[in-house]
Amino acid sequence: MKQVYNFSAGPAMLPKSVLKTAQAEMLDFNGSGMSVMELSHRSKWFIDILEAAEANLRKLLDIPDNYHVLFLQGGASQQFAMVPMNLMVRNKKADYVLTGSWSKKAYKEAQLFGEVRVVGEDTNNHIPKLTKDMFDPNADYVHITTNNTIEGTAFSTLPDTGDVPLVADMSSNILSTPIDVSKFGLIYAGAQKNIGPAGLTIVIIRDDLVGQAPATVPTMFNYETHVKNKSSFNTPPTYSIYIAKLVFDWLLDLGGLEEMERLNRAKADLLYQALDESKLFDAPIKGEDRSIMNVPFIAANGDQELEAKFISEAKAAGLETLKGHRSVGGMRASIYNAMPLAGVEALVDFIKKFEESNQ
Amino acid sequence: MKQVYNFSAGPAMLPKSVLKTAQAEMLDFNGSGMSVMELSHRSKWFIDILEAAEANLRKLLDIPDNYHVLFLQGGASQQFAMVPMNLMVRNKKADYVLTGSWSKKAYKEAQLFGEVRVVGEDTNNHIPKLTKDMFDPNADYVHITTNNTIEGTAFSTLPDTGDVPLVADMSSNILSTPIDVSKFGLIYAGAQKNIGPAGLTIVIIRDDLVGQAPATVPTMFNYETHVKNKSSFNTPPTYSIYIAKLVFDWLLDLGGLEEMERLNRAKADLLYQALDESKLFDAPIKGEDRSIMNVPFIAANGDQELEAKFISEAKAAGLETLKGHRSVGGMRASIYNAMPLAGVEALVDFIKKFEESNQ
Repeated sequence: MKQVYNFSAGPAMLPKSVLKTAQAEMLDFNGSGMSVMELSHRSKWFIDILEAAEANLRKLLDIPDNYHVLFLQGGASQQFAMVPMNLMVRNKKADYVLTGSWSKKAYKEAQLFGEVRVVGEDTNNHIPKLTKDMFDPNADYVHITTNNTIEGTAFSTLPDTGDVPLVADMSSNILSTPIDVSKFGLIYAGAQKNIGPAGLTIVIIRDDLVGQAPATVPTMFNYETHVKNKSSFNTPPTYSIYIAKLVFDWLLDLGGLEEMERLNRAKADLLYQALDESKLFDAPIKGEDRSIMNVPFIAANGDQELEAKFISEAKAAGLETLKGHRSVGGMRASIYNAMPLAGVEALVDFIKKFEESNQ
Repeated sequence: MKQVYNFSAGPAMLPKSVLKTAQAEMLDFNGSGMSVMELSHRSKWFIDILEAAEANLRKLLDIPDNYHVLFLQGGASQQFAMVPMNLMVRNKKADYVLTGSWSKKAYKEAQLFGEVRVVGEDTNNHIPKLTKDMFDPNADYVHITTNNTIEGTAFSTLPDTGDVPLVADMSSNILSTPIDVSKFGLIYAGAQKNIGPAGLTIVIIRDDLVGQAPATVPTMFNYETHVKNKSSFNTPPTYSIYIAKLVFDWLLDLGGLEEMERLNRAKADLLYQALDESKLFDAPIKGEDRSIMNVPFIAANGDQELEAKFISEAKAAGLETLKGHRSVGGMRASIYNAMPLAGVEALVDFIKKFEESNQ
């Protein structure tokens, strides 16, 4: 089997050991004689998986007891609607910080449900500076996107929103570093970057924010439904939850999120340093706004042919999916938790060799 | 590995050959050096899987060109809301036929969106007789549940609704027999019975029913979003779609739905015959209303201790998940497409032996 490092922005690499366990258990989970895909979601086997997944995630993120963990479907895009359906209910207004394509989509969707104000907009290489007085104290919540997958920016510090609940789309950097969950009202994340397969969405919601949705909200779009039924009101995405549980096991075995952050920073530093030293390439994001998950870079002279050549030759060398998002072009290396240091080293070596032969 | 036959109502058995292919390809799909779970949904690899899944499903069900096939998330429960959000828009009324627990849930949810009328209600061992004059010609649609997973009843003929679109929840019997898709306006089905892993929902929708939703419907809950973006508006449940594609391959290799129906009828006939001949057990559903997918049965004398003994001893013999739904008790054997004839034979043998030793 050829050695491939996959720099896809998501779905993305999974730890090799997780895939090997899934492979070994595919036809017979835990002596059941059945695949996890075949287990009833009401069976003890699956309930054990679901409870272990939640317990592991609580341990990894040190989630306080007054927060619920939900395993849902529909991705961040579905949360763009579910968050205002459930939370924009008291004063029917919310503040949205716009830092990239995904926060703009969240903002657009929220406008269906009330008065939505933009507070801090910078989708061009920077995270806006935010102070507490910029936020409306009567807003039902403030929404941020902690890491911008397409733009390659990330919040290095959280905004102070006072008593207004902070809601965060953390799809592309959840579990990459420790976080203080108590600073958030609600966190949501699509699984397909740092958690597991596409089709699973994690929601972490503070107790007091559950049960506010008006009676007009459909059952499946009301967080309370899923809190009351422990994510099993209907059949949850059982196999994806099983893979997520294996990823959480892997993170705990690794030493938890402090160790994961150390590794992620080492990978990102190595790549950014190579790009900063390069004459051929440039990383547009500088300083503390740099994402440690998604690293966009371009040909310094804007030569799109050179970029295409780089992407094509990298692919031939086993460095997959380095093409930038279609909205911005260039290259992007997504180096999520499961990307090993060896993968970033291989990319850095390739960048240096490519530079030597294309001067 | 022990031989287990899993009679779960869903998630349910998958064809062994599908699981073996998934196992073999887990770490390296098609020479990519990547797992299908790791592939970008925008990659050629995955787009090929998605297109093949759709093409195979179209072939199996002989889906006319004026129908769209969507690969969504959220299960039938999410469709309970999405159907009225999208279709109960012209006259804001719909007729619902109530034949079981699931159609009642669909009915309850639809009431959030307009005037919903019950037409034909029989959740007690029969499918109601329906004539065209019972339906409101001004209803936006008529909703049925073609197979009742909990009750064990199924429609043997479709109601004639005239020009009113027929909407069907086919979660528990899609792909079990050929159907005439042109008789329906919309078909939806959760995957976890006859299609693949939980977390994937198939929607088949007639062209003229797309694009009716008012602007207040959130983006993700509007069928038009998914039609326009070929089920990839956001990241679809990629791995579940891959497994579904393998199941569709398996069905085509088997000889398609005519052959699948022949096998399903043989399995169901064998089991119903054993229950009809039994003095110890009784199958409450009789005649043409019998489901060929879900076979509930009870102790003829109502002895719940005997039922518990049967379920426990069956489990020890490798006949898994025969406990009836908690709302009705007793036993239930779900014998979906992937249940081999040998599994039903093993169950019938076990029933006979149990009867001999418990007279």
